[in-house]
Amino acid sequence: MFFLFISNTDLAAEPGLSAAGANAEVLPLTSPADADVIRFGQPSAIDCFPMDPDGHPTPAIITRAAVVSANIPVAIVRAGSILPPEPPYVELGAQCGKDPRTCPSVPDARKIFDRARCLARNCTSRGGKVMLAESVPGGTTTALLVLRALGHDVMVSSASRINPIGQKEKIWEDASSRAGVKMGDLRGDPMKALEELGDPMQSAVLGFIAGSHDESEITLAGGTQMLAVAACLRALGDGRPITVATTKYIAKDPSSSFASLASALEVETYAAPLDFSASPFKGLRDYEEGYVKEGVGAGGSALYASWSGVDISEVIRATNSIYGKIAASPVK
Amino acid sequence: MFFLFISNTDLAAEPGLSAAGANAEVLPLTSPADADVIRFGQPSAIDCFPMDPDGHPTPAIITRAAVVSANIPVAIVRAGSILPPEPPYVELGAQCGKDPRTCPSVPDARKIFDRARCLARNCTSRGGKVMLAESVPGGTTTALLVLRALGHDVMVSSASRINPIGQKEKIWEDASSRAGVKMGDLRGDPMKALEELGDPMQSAVLGFIAGSHDESEITLAGGTQMLAVAACLRALGDGRPITVATTKYIAKDPSSSFASLASALEVETYAAPLDFSASPFKGLRDYEEGYVKEGVGAGGSALYASWSGVDISEVIRATNSIYGKIAASPVK
Repeated sequence: MFFLFISNTDLAAEPGLSAAGANAEVLPLTSPADADVIRFGQPSAIDCFPMDPDGHPTPAIITRAAVVSANIPVAIVRAGSILPPEPPYVELGAQCGKDPRTCPSVPDARKIFDRARCLARNCTSRGGKVMLAESVPGGTTTALLVLRALGHDVMVSSASRINPIGQKEKIWEDASSRAGVKMGDLRGDPMKALEELGDPMQSAVLGFIAGSHDESEITLAGGTQMLAVAACLRALGDGRPITVATTKYIAKDPSSSFASLASALEVETYAAPLDFSASPFKGLRDYEEGYVKEGVGAGGSALYASWSGVDISEVIRATNSIYGKIAASPVK
Repeated sequence: MFFLFISNTDLAAEPGLSAAGANAEVLPLTSPADADVIRFGQPSAIDCFPMDPDGHPTPAIITRAAVVSANIPVAIVRAGSILPPEPPYVELGAQCGKDPRTCPSVPDARKIFDRARCLARNCTSRGGKVMLAESVPGGTTTALLVLRALGHDVMVSSASRINPIGQKEKIWEDASSRAGVKMGDLRGDPMKALEELGDPMQSAVLGFIAGSHDESEITLAGGTQMLAVAACLRALGDGRPITVATTKYIAKDPSSSFASLASALEVETYAAPLDFSASPFKGLRDYEEGYVKEGVGAGGSALYASWSGVDISEVIRATNSIYGKIAASPVK
């Protein structure tokens, strides 16, 4: 089963940091809309499709294409999103993530962890394949903060073509200073790193892994955000086999430390060879230029589809088809 | 997997109708507390155990005993409960059931049905065993109303030792008159029966069955409330094999039409041979006198335990043990 965890962090409201957060009005709608897109093909609470300010569609349309092509079973887990998605969904009762520059960002991290662990105990099994994905505007920055608190001196990817590295460094400076934490200080206490600097998705996915059947096969679908969760898992002393499945756009991003970090954490990686260079739509062709890159489990969903015998060329074709329908019927 | 659907209906507030509704303050807490008991062993929102006015414990303690003894995986589905249970749970976004004497009781019945169907599509599989249970204070009366609208001239059981039959007849009279529906008028339109006279649990369980894999094995855990759902299923023209698992207390209740109705609906039945006659606790011994009888999937949970090789004697023993702990540490 494919689980999408949706959360918000107040960091996303920082101008210039998150592509999804560029419009403050739309920000609370982004992750529920992603959840709706992958299950129903369109958002239910708004009558327009999630796009970044430059007109690039949410990577949820790739995930939707895979879900439809391979009939992937999907569950949505609400882990501190401002607004709920269209039901049915699993409610974890988490608070939204706060701004780690001003206060501990996930004071209920332990509770979220416990509840997600409870969820996993009841829905994972021996040999069962589980894929965990996320939609968290601003989540690459909380990933950076947690990774550094755990001692990984890395930079993370961005959904923007130009990674706002300077801005992320400044946030690390301010948040780590507020928390009184230096690089590596919390390598022995990942729960504290999540409480002080993380976002609710990270606690939820970490708890879900911890509660999963020992012999279930776990794949984290995402980029550096999921590596941050894997780093927490390793810091807890859990060495179980984990695969992080992402897109080639993340794997080849020179501004991020994806490959070296994955190697250091001893996790397997998969980079979906998506290719929209021949797409009739500029919004998708731009993925080849480094826009958007990943999110909503896009890369992982292509891997999931391949487990069902659906080739990535079919996922690409279906993505173009979905985008064509959106483009043909622009909503107000 | 064992799914517990929790809902409320405004009918439960009618004095004398529902044992669970005897205390208006506690009424909204009852079904979430049942959910908490079967997963965690105790309610989280209140510091006392659900009891009827005569001191009989909720049948959730039997279900809890089975869940613990046989390690049964449990999911809670919130289908229009006033208050939420402790997370995690599945949110269906349903309204609470209204009083069918004054207005259509489940105006969102179709939406609830669709969402539960969506849920089932993603969590049932070929050959998989699924058990569906309920906690709905006042739910035997909404069952009666729906059954009669579908043309079944029956009486339903009660959690009280003396079934308030006259009161239930008066409610049928008033609700059917308000809706302009006579016995059997809606046999061709079960969704309309649910909208006008039902409760949200019925729509949710019906939708879940409709969305379940054709070759999953479905057991409805409950008494006449689950037969009302089965009656809706048959009225929709769905003839799939269904088992209704209840307790011997319902099966032998002379005031209800359980056996004849089950036979008319062509559903298999199972009556768990619970026996608390040797219990050291009067609260449980009284089950043998016809108090409580069933609820929260108690009878079905004993069947589920037997699938895992756990004998009913072990469920009885564990129930006594749980009750003993409650009795030993009375909460304020």
